[in-house]
Amino acid sequence: MDCLFCKLIAGELPSYKVYEDENVFAFLDINPVNPGHTLVIPKKHFSTMEDITVEELAEVMKVVKTVGRAIKQGLELDGYNVNINNGEVAGQIVPHLHFHVIPRKEGDGLDLWPQGKYGDGEAEDTVKKIKGKI
Amino acid sequence: MDCLFCKLIAGELPSYKVYEDENVFAFLDINPVNPGHTLVIPKKHFSTMEDITVEELAEVMKVVKTVGRAIKQGLELDGYNVNINNGEVAGQIVPHLHFHVIPRKEGDGLDLWPQGKYGDGEAEDTVKKIKGKI
Repeated sequence: MDCLFCKLIAGELPSYKVYEDENVFAFLDINPVNPGHTLVIPKKHFSTMEDITVEELAEVMKVVKTVGRAIKQGLELDGYNVNINNGEVAGQIVPHLHFHVIPRKEGDGLDLWPQGKYGDGEAEDTVKKIKGKI
Repeated sequence: MDCLFCKLIAGELPSYKVYEDENVFAFLDINPVNPGHTLVIPKKHFSTMEDITVEELAEVMKVVKTVGRAIKQGLELDGYNVNINNGEVAGQIVPHLHFHVIPRKEGDGLDLWPQGKYGDGEAEDTVKKIKGKI
């Protein structure tokens, strides 16, 4: 398969590997938002969270948790973000499910997205649409 | 405990509930980045991902996956982001671990954070620091 991340896992392309086990691989994002920005990925190829089983997702999250702690301790920082972009419209570039773990420090200038408000009845209507598919 | 999210779970404060089971609760963020922006939280109070067990984390992620799919189908969108802000420095406001599920659509104007590059030897040094804590 012509997938960049599958090639990194296979060692066909070099990467700064942070962690590896039977099912999960973690490596530095070569274009970091902040130094230490790590990508955690399942070794098996899935496009998005919709394709992975809950058991396999749990394996990946276990590593995300470990990497997050290691980033805090190793880089001596107080927090980190975990971001998963599902689908091109959500900013996903490589179509192999990946979890961004982004180290954060005071004054790094990264702002969260602005938040708005619901109009009259809009929240009720939105809940109905989502709940109808659960 | 004087925790806003614990009060929503207990029904002491109102919320637009999307989903609930024994361990997990999901509701609309009342200040949505995009309409349908849902927060998925463990019912048990944990501050960040470091405090939750991997088993409990798996329970929450299972619901995140379900809610993500339901948002895509119910709101007829092509993607969504999952964001976890761990620690105040990472933008966490309510100190009860929560997973943002943010619906995305073309042209919604939400940009991901800018990415940079590592200087000479910086990536090697960073990997060493993180791996040393795994």
